[in-house]
Amino acid sequence: MSDHECTTLEEASEKLKLGMRIMIREGSSEKNLDALIPLADDNNFKRCFFVVDDRNCADLLVDGDVDAVIRKAISAGIDPIRAIQMATINTAEYFRLEGHGAIAPGYRANLIVLNDIENLEVSQVFYEGCLVAERGEMIEPLSRISNMDLTHSVKIKSFEIQDLMIAAISSAAPVIGIVPDQIITKRRDEKPKIENNYIIPDVERDLLKLIVMERHRATGNIGRTFVKGFGLKKGALASSIAHDSHNIIAVGTNDQDIFIAINELERLQGGLVITAGGRILGSLALPVAGLLSEEPLQNVVQRLEELHKIAASLGCGLKSPFATLSFLALPVIPELRLTDKGLVDVNRFELI
Amino acid sequence: MSDHECTTLEEASEKLKLGMRIMIREGSSEKNLDALIPLADDNNFKRCFFVVDDRNCADLLVDGDVDAVIRKAISAGIDPIRAIQMATINTAEYFRLEGHGAIAPGYRANLIVLNDIENLEVSQVFYEGCLVAERGEMIEPLSRISNMDLTHSVKIKSFEIQDLMIAAISSAAPVIGIVPDQIITKRRDEKPKIENNYIIPDVERDLLKLIVMERHRATGNIGRTFVKGFGLKKGALASSIAHDSHNIIAVGTNDQDIFIAINELERLQGGLVITAGGRILGSLALPVAGLLSEEPLQNVVQRLEELHKIAASLGCGLKSPFATLSFLALPVIPELRLTDKGLVDVNRFELI
Repeated sequence: MSDHECTTLEEASEKLKLGMRIMIREGSSEKNLDALIPLADDNNFKRCFFVVDDRNCADLLVDGDVDAVIRKAISAGIDPIRAIQMATINTAEYFRLEGHGAIAPGYRANLIVLNDIENLEVSQVFYEGCLVAERGEMIEPLSRISNMDLTHSVKIKSFEIQDLMIAAISSAAPVIGIVPDQIITKRRDEKPKIENNYIIPDVERDLLKLIVMERHRATGNIGRTFVKGFGLKKGALASSIAHDSHNIIAVGTNDQDIFIAINELERLQGGLVITAGGRILGSLALPVAGLLSEEPLQNVVQRLEELHKIAASLGCGLKSPFATLSFLALPVIPELRLTDKGLVDVNRFELI
Repeated sequence: MSDHECTTLEEASEKLKLGMRIMIREGSSEKNLDALIPLADDNNFKRCFFVVDDRNCADLLVDGDVDAVIRKAISAGIDPIRAIQMATINTAEYFRLEGHGAIAPGYRANLIVLNDIENLEVSQVFYEGCLVAERGEMIEPLSRISNMDLTHSVKIKSFEIQDLMIAAISSAAPVIGIVPDQIITKRRDEKPKIENNYIIPDVERDLLKLIVMERHRATGNIGRTFVKGFGLKKGALASSIAHDSHNIIAVGTNDQDIFIAINELERLQGGLVITAGGRILGSLALPVAGLLSEEPLQNVVQRLEELHKIAASLGCGLKSPFATLSFLALPVIPELRLTDKGLVDVNRFELI
């Protein structure tokens, strides 16, 4: 019914003609607005709308969320009213969100007041008719707006360090190969480094251990494989952000640091953790669903930058190592991914 | 959420701004396209669509159905593709008719093939992928297309002629006053003509008896009153078309002819009947739901014209007496209407 993965005008136009709605995406890495915005002409704009897909907290702080996409669309020549419609009523109608997407009788009074429509400078935010933020400052604490408790979501079955080990059963093993600056991965078949009948990480060849552990219902499911591309010389990274199931995912040069990192994640009830030499070097707690923080955005961005520096100091050459890590569990994009049920050959849609 | 009763651009524009969809109506009597079509500009056309509301069979034969509205919109300057969208996908999306309104994968193959897009000249009709009509002729019989049995819908409780009588309980009685060429009625309070303690029709003053009899579940509900404006000098008209409940409605100069007409309607299982002097002068059977015929449209139109002539010969001065009759049961339009539960003061939304 819709697609948020169109990257060329031809592709989006073909899908539109076949009856699909086009989600024009501006994520932190995938940016499709410039290519797709010519589609949103007088005839078709009602069937197009804006999404961000993955947008990291630093971009939220500096550029904004969907509001940033509206600004970019206006800069690209879209009428401001129409750009706002594409981010509000079009989206609400597609998802059948009754009472959302417009200012009208019978609709919820979730509103923003703008100083300036061209730059979409937000002056006030109303939630269900009440002023909750003004000039960038919250007036109401979040807890007074929503009393849904989404914390305490990390539920893992008790495990031993031995549960992370991989028995050597073959002279070649599939390894997830990271492609720098791309979301796809490549399958590599590498000769494993074996010790006492177990495959172990090979830091020389950048073959690091990758673990995915189920964390919603404490099933004890653990997926194990190797990944090439992180470049860590020591230590481990672990995260409770892992698309789309958001289990725990961890990469490391040794089981001990992975073990400590996962246990720290459980204690924090979600977040990002870096360990090395048996010690926790840094962390960012994300206690809301294991995905979000209630801290001010500035603090979160600053903490994430610190973690990036720590990862770099351990040898990791990736710009956003936790973002890269989070996508290694996404079993819908080629070629090889790891889930809590094991390694997935996405080209064949099969567990290996 | 929507309105099909807008008659001025100002009204329609106001409703559009308040979040409503605008149904642009072209019925047999109410024609709003010329007034409302400027609303369907580049920004708003997706929130407007075409309806016919009430369109009689003669107009269906000569002008067409919603196709006639599309042709008129094209004549008014709307791009043909957009005019077709307003009659298809816009309607389907508003009513959430999944799989309808477009030619695309996942949609039903209910299609028309046009010789000429400007005049919307239909060459072929496909239903669920099969050619069912070509150049105005059915290829498949209707029964092979739909096996839903919608006949035998007229179920009335056995009644006597005495059940149509109205006891005289007051020296004034409310009478439905027909306003020529308008759908509204006026309340008139007339001194009733009384005989043996019953109010009887007064042909001299054109005060005729009006009956509405429940016909879906044989409840025995009968509404009785008087109406001024038909001008019949003798006989009765009865119909199983009576908006919106479509009970039986009958008007007459005497109970005997009304009684015979209603009984004939039951025998026909719906339709239109004219009686006079205890005899059936003419009828049109509408056995499908008591509303439609399976006969060719030409035959239906011809038969209706014959009935109009018979009604005129009995003194009825109305152009479409059965259409006028059908609206007397519609209890949502001022001022006075008759239902099977009695007379309704629509201004006060109360039974009298």
